[in-house]
Amino acid sequence: MSSATLLIHCPDKSGLVAIISEFLFANNGNILHFDQHVDSETQTFFMRVVWDLNHFSIPKDKIGDCFQTLIASKNEIKFDIFFSETKPKMALFVSSLSHCLFDLLSRYEAGELRVEIPFILSNHNHLKHVAERFEIPFIHIPNSADRKAEAEQEMIQICKKYSVDFIVLARYMQILSSNFVDTYRNRIINIHHSFLPAFPGARPYHSAFARGVKIIGATSHYVTSELDAGPIIEQDVARVSHRDSIDDLVRKGRDLEKLVLSRAVYKHVNRMVLVYGNKTVVF
Amino acid sequence: MSSATLLIHCPDKSGLVAIISEFLFANNGNILHFDQHVDSETQTFFMRVVWDLNHFSIPKDKIGDCFQTLIASKNEIKFDIFFSETKPKMALFVSSLSHCLFDLLSRYEAGELRVEIPFILSNHNHLKHVAERFEIPFIHIPNSADRKAEAEQEMIQICKKYSVDFIVLARYMQILSSNFVDTYRNRIINIHHSFLPAFPGARPYHSAFARGVKIIGATSHYVTSELDAGPIIEQDVARVSHRDSIDDLVRKGRDLEKLVLSRAVYKHVNRMVLVYGNKTVVF
Amino acid sequence: MSSATLLIHCPDKSGLVAIISEFLFANNGNILHFDQHVDSETQTFFMRVVWDLNHFSIPKDKIGDCFQTLIASKNEIKFDIFFSETKPKMALFVSSLSHCLFDLLSRYEAGELRVEIPFILSNHNHLKHVAERFEIPFIHIPNSADRKAEAEQEMIQICKKYSVDFIVLARYMQILSSNFVDTYRNRIINIHHSFLPAFPGARPYHSAFARGVKIIGATSHYVTSELDAGPIIEQDVARVSHRDSIDDLVRKGRDLEKLVLSRAVYKHVNRMVLVYGNKTVVF
Amino acid sequence: MSSATLLIHCPDKSGLVAIISEFLFANNGNILHFDQHVDSETQTFFMRVVWDLNHFSIPKDKIGDCFQTLIASKNEIKFDIFFSETKPKMALFVSSLSHCLFDLLSRYEAGELRVEIPFILSNHNHLKHVAERFEIPFIHIPNSADRKAEAEQEMIQICKKYSVDFIVLARYMQILSSNFVDTYRNRIINIHHSFLPAFPGARPYHSAFARGVKIIGATSHYVTSELDAGPIIEQDVARVSHRDSIDDLVRKGRDLEKLVLSRAVYKHVNRMVLVYGNKTVVF
Repeated sequence: MSSATLLIHCPDKSGLVAIISEFLFANNGNILHFDQHVDSETQTFFMRVVWDLNHFSIPKDKIGDCFQTLIASKNEIKFDIFFSETKPKMALFVSSLSHCLFDLLSRYEAGELRVEIPFILSNHNHLKHVAERFEIPFIHIPNSADRKAEAEQEMIQICKKYSVDFIVLARYMQILSSNFVDTYRNRIINIHHSFLPAFPGARPYHSAFARGVKIIGATSHYVTSELDAGPIIEQDVARVSHRDSIDDLVRKGRDLEKLVLSRAVYKHVNRMVLVYGNKTVVF
Repeated sequence: MSSATLLIHCPDKSGLVAIISEFLFANNGNILHFDQHVDSETQTFFMRVVWDLNHFSIPKDKIGDCFQTLIASKNEIKFDIFFSETKPKMALFVSSLSHCLFDLLSRYEAGELRVEIPFILSNHNHLKHVAERFEIPFIHIPNSADRKAEAEQEMIQICKKYSVDFIVLARYMQILSSNFVDTYRNRIINIHHSFLPAFPGARPYHSAFARGVKIIGATSHYVTSELDAGPIIEQDVARVSHRDSIDDLVRKGRDLEKLVLSRAVYKHVNRMVLVYGNKTVVF
Repeated sequence: MSSATLLIHCPDKSGLVAIISEFLFANNGNILHFDQHVDSETQTFFMRVVWDLNHFSIPKDKIGDCFQTLIASKNEIKFDIFFSETKPKMALFVSSLSHCLFDLLSRYEAGELRVEIPFILSNHNHLKHVAERFEIPFIHIPNSADRKAEAEQEMIQICKKYSVDFIVLARYMQILSSNFVDTYRNRIINIHHSFLPAFPGARPYHSAFARGVKIIGATSHYVTSELDAGPIIEQDVARVSHRDSIDDLVRKGRDLEKLVLSRAVYKHVNRMVLVYGNKTVVF
Repeated sequence: MSSATLLIHCPDKSGLVAIISEFLFANNGNILHFDQHVDSETQTFFMRVVWDLNHFSIPKDKIGDCFQTLIASKNEIKFDIFFSETKPKMALFVSSLSHCLFDLLSRYEAGELRVEIPFILSNHNHLKHVAERFEIPFIHIPNSADRKAEAEQEMIQICKKYSVDFIVLARYMQILSSNFVDTYRNRIINIHHSFLPAFPGARPYHSAFARGVKIIGATSHYVTSELDAGPIIEQDVARVSHRDSIDDLVRKGRDLEKLVLSRAVYKHVNRMVLVYGNKTVVF
């Protein structure tokens, strides 16, 4: 089935649900999913609606224009439209840990993630064989302190060349510059191996062990220029005890990282995430 | 703020969201919450909408009539309307275990549950002192095998006398007859001390122990004439191990029972639950 | 059954299990539970052993002496012995929120917590009626900024008068001085309404809401002079979403606070907790 | 570090901890981990002890004999000894679903599972390419109704030829005969895609959807001749709602299946599981 997904946010006011649902109904768009939310602090209205394009009377390439002219411009609405046939292009950035990469690739291969993966990029060569096994191009761009700016230029060029829609940092252990982050604003998904805002930065399992917490976590978020402080998409936790060494925390944490990152990517790919300020609405 | 909550279900068709939201908008009803769901198996449409009554142009006592005439009758819609000022009357049935009773009463007293509790009814006298402490009338109706029908008659009469809206079985250890259940269809909430459909009936913790499960659970559901088989409202679980004796399962289970029952009651009281067939939509 | 519980920690070395179990065996002490742990960072040995006193050949009042002379002094062992007949005296400190108080009292009354509660102490009068209902003395000690030292003196005197063994801060919203904390070192149990070390200090639900976390938590810990930084006994979490307002976080958090505090108290009362440095071993 | 792991069960009696720890201590065996449990129903004693072999005065190949003669024979003890250097040989049986296979193989490759995988066996050819990617021999043995006995004979021969220690059914969708199961008693690990004992047998996600449960689960257990009724090693659950279609349950369930099976395998490989009757002790 061919469908469209519309993501909206605007200042809240009366009648928005009626106006938008009427627009779809009047044009023979049967609603498949409909979610809305009002943030009462900022009086912002959010909506996600998915409808069947089969009998929809507006041609696909005109929907955005029509909606802009008839609805959005009159209501200060910001929106994005996505079509079910279009697979987003997802670049994978990795360093030397394989668990998140394997997990994403096995989901991709099983058809769970409707994306294209134009390439896997790494600052190391360790995981080249994984890329080869899945027959995905592997690009090695060293990213040591002395060539960081240069490396990022190469990375941006490659992403542009392949028309990348979003980037997944699958335990890519380098900090990206503000310049890079701004180029893919709200389109870079990171996995941090702690329950943020606890233990940002390096070596969170060591810090968790030292503090003696009884639960560890992982957090997937959009990358912003402030380290580990971007809008959170998904988190999960696991119970630990005094019996768990740091190695045990790392091992248990790997499972959290895999799951949390994969869920965040799934939600991003299925257009279930709206970012506002430093927070997310995840429908 | 004075608000109305509308719960709807009907055969799915195009335009329902538009029709209903337009009805509210046209009458100055500002939507506070809006949720819909389509069950794709049965093609049934479900909706919960909450709106501000402040500037709503239809008087409260006419809303039901208007909605029936203008919208429901034309779309095969079944609906209920609730008003935020009206506190539902909740009867509590207990036997001799106090944990769920204490938990509900402490929430009630803290203002977390917007209900009236006209009485606490029991087939024993054990918990009379709890009722007295909270200054709620306590009614003792023995319910032994030889006077079950008689007991249920008395119970129904008391519920009617106090205009009870719904009944919570807070570990009331008697099976209610079909007659009783039909009188309060989808309005009797039970807590069963297992993860249904595993371990229905008596002594589920003993059965869980014997089976060697690693997780136990509790289930809150609407009571139907078939034992422990009614529509599930809420479930939760807790991890156990070989170290846990049956007494430990009972102790850990009590916490699950309290939480799961209280959550189910909260959702029922806040009109977040729709029953269809033997399942629930919990918005 | 009459039993003894021995809690031990000492520098790790070979043979400790053999030495201690042999001591019990040689004196007809049948082991009921046996747990040990070695912290590999600090090379510290921890043990908890519970044995049946029925046929134990050393009289109760001599066990400590014998163990000190024969075993502890030769192995740098620090230990505590507790007897099942002795109920610890637990003081409850509260302010104006009732949920943790109700939860602890209902467990106490149901026999789940084997303690004596000599009094409930508060800096307010709000919860006096709860104490009265459970027929426990209520002591009101105002604790405003201008009489803090004086208030703490009164609190310590009352605790001493009643031979209090440990203190539970059931949402007692005052910071205790180092002097007070040192008097009951590792014997004051607090509940903090966040997943520490995230959101220490005041208004953690507001901070969690502002950060947009997808999971909230609660943490029970022993109080030290550094705020919210003491050894963690127990933590738990609950999932939240963009739909949850601050009020919803507070409501969901209350259930976490109740459970986490009650579990921590249960473990403390049953002598399952050993403190070392700023961490706990919870057997 | 070279270490030995001893798993024991026997009728409970006084002094077992002392006898066994004394045996290790007397022979310079430094205990690394020590766990014991008494099942109070059956009065059975269970123990797992891991010790450093570095200075142990009994040669590795004599430990079993010595322990049998000196300790086990006098106390009706049944035991197994494992050495850290010996990697168990794990056969993987699969059908056509890849998620559990990928998950186990990526852990194996990352060094998380200390096993050898002599082959992957399947009744289909679908996953041959996965085996090839990881350079593990793939064996195709069709197992249709008409050649079941024959197929099982081939399977047993191959397992014997490769000296397989245990078998993991990573969503192998065939029922094994009692004969096969008896050959590898308590050494075949299955993953069932429900929270057993709820929904045994075929199509558990469909049953869970029909029943309207709010939580789904997965269960890993040792295979016995009774379907889905063997000793449970590990279980886990995930929350679902009315919004989840059967396809969503299947998708969410896959993550549970992966995790639960991998945890069970990890525990089996690390000799943390003791089976007694139809239950497990998981240390």
